[in-house]
Amino acid sequence: MLRAARKIAALLPKTPLLPLEVDGRTIWCKAEVLQPIGAFKIRGAWHRLTDLTEEQRGRGVVGVSSGNHAQGVAWAAKRLGVAATIVMPGNAPKAKLAATRALGAEVMLYDRATENRDEIAAALVAQSGGTLVHAYGDPWIIEGQGTVGIEAAEQLEERIGRGPDRIVACCGGGGLTAGLALACPDAEIFIAEPEGWDDMLNSLAAGEIVSVRDMSYPTDCDALQTPRTFPINFAVLKERVSGGAAVTPADVSAAMKLAFERLHLVVEPGGAAALAAVLSGKVQASDATVVTLSGGNVDQETFVRMISA
Amino acid sequence: MLRAARKIAALLPKTPLLPLEVDGRTIWCKAEVLQPIGAFKIRGAWHRLTDLTEEQRGRGVVGVSSGNHAQGVAWAAKRLGVAATIVMPGNAPKAKLAATRALGAEVMLYDRATENRDEIAAALVAQSGGTLVHAYGDPWIIEGQGTVGIEAAEQLEERIGRGPDRIVACCGGGGLTAGLALACPDAEIFIAEPEGWDDMLNSLAAGEIVSVRDMSYPTDCDALQTPRTFPINFAVLKERVSGGAAVTPADVSAAMKLAFERLHLVVEPGGAAALAAVLSGKVQASDATVVTLSGGNVDQETFVRMISA
Repeated sequence: MLRAARKIAALLPKTPLLPLEVDGRTIWCKAEVLQPIGAFKIRGAWHRLTDLTEEQRGRGVVGVSSGNHAQGVAWAAKRLGVAATIVMPGNAPKAKLAATRALGAEVMLYDRATENRDEIAAALVAQSGGTLVHAYGDPWIIEGQGTVGIEAAEQLEERIGRGPDRIVACCGGGGLTAGLALACPDAEIFIAEPEGWDDMLNSLAAGEIVSVRDMSYPTDCDALQTPRTFPINFAVLKERVSGGAAVTPADVSAAMKLAFERLHLVVEPGGAAALAAVLSGKVQASDATVVTLSGGNVDQETFVRMISA
Repeated sequence: MLRAARKIAALLPKTPLLPLEVDGRTIWCKAEVLQPIGAFKIRGAWHRLTDLTEEQRGRGVVGVSSGNHAQGVAWAAKRLGVAATIVMPGNAPKAKLAATRALGAEVMLYDRATENRDEIAAALVAQSGGTLVHAYGDPWIIEGQGTVGIEAAEQLEERIGRGPDRIVACCGGGGLTAGLALACPDAEIFIAEPEGWDDMLNSLAAGEIVSVRDMSYPTDCDALQTPRTFPINFAVLKERVSGGAAVTPADVSAAMKLAFERLHLVVEPGGAAALAAVLSGKVQASDATVVTLSGGNVDQETFVRMISA
């Protein structure tokens, strides 16, 4: 993972680690919304694509994503001159669809409720000979996302003289969370998932991977609408996750509003889940807690509705 | 000014310098909205208050401000155990009034259209023996705000191998702008003021300090509603300002909306004026232009109205 961290450090400045007072305690918010694509996903995508061989680059890459990983892959592909095709849900936020296309990727739409995106991607890979860049079930992606933890630990050490003893992460398929768990072995890992999409918490409770029960359960946290985790992520998380919470729409609204008022950051619903878990008291903060603000790509109407709720 | 920069560096991490593509050109946005008080004003206030003698600290400080300098003085005063009284307009944004009080300062309200805030502050100083911490007409404040330029120059040098050749600054009384002019002697300085409150541009054109003509001219840029500059600021700016523009409400809305969408930052109207000047084409960007995003303290209703316009 240190090799990934060196690659990211050479490419992108550290995102800020911002203090926020919550109930008299300071928590530390890792502002990944300030990445060039507005989310941490640029890290894993860059790590993966830069490790492709020349021949692999020539055949292009295929990704699946509701929009943040899509932009990460598209951004890295554009910079490296690699063709990218991204399988995205038709109901992805307009901002994410537009930004992915603006980065030059070809976008293939699918129906989130009825189609299996992994099957669509596999067919594309079989047809083109391109490389699948999975959104979370991939060792490069996990390593790349884990650089969030390496940076945050360095920054917290500078600020308070110690690294995090607790990290609360927004969790979809578990790419970021597995990366953080590997990057910060001394920190307790807690996860936040949206109500109805808490398949990781259910999997951890069951001791085996279980899927989301109702794929049409409504949520604004599109970035965390992952049907099920992958064995590579689950193998790490079942050993390392200390707890977590499913957050409600009201929890997420409160977190987005606080980030607006006190941090002056635009955080998308899925990116605010970890802060929502702490604010709601569902996950306790310690004296050295890092919280991921993992993405900020939200349509204006959704943002206005959430902070006005 | 290097002494000020060392004091600020010891207290606060650098705010990010974020790239933004505008008409095919990259401009560099200095995100001062991410300061603990949501604005650059923390810099000058900290520099001034830490240079007070023990005896001066005991008698307290008096500030005048629509809300960002207020929070800067209140934040520094709280940290140093100094009593602070701030003269603020009764129609200041609710968020600014609440945040200043939450930092423990005593707030005295005045009517912006009919009362002279400097006279009110002078009376308070005469009564208490406290030290006036002026929002812009003060050498410590100018030096402190100038550290924005020192940081931005270091950051741009790291990113593109050279410092800024042009800086576009949001301009109220001219504290920040004078500081930037002194910090970056090789850069051209441009200023942005709100329509109706372009007294600095009028002063520069006239060759002498002139006041705002209509103190009741409506604007959302409360942070830039300064009746007139002070001789110390004007002496610097008349030698160093290359140009500037008065921005309209539509220009400011467009800038706030772009910062929301592409940078995921909440920028208040007055803090978006410099970006508005560049976006509207009223000030041209160069290949190494830094733009200040100077504050983010905006009420929710105002923010929603501006980004929905």
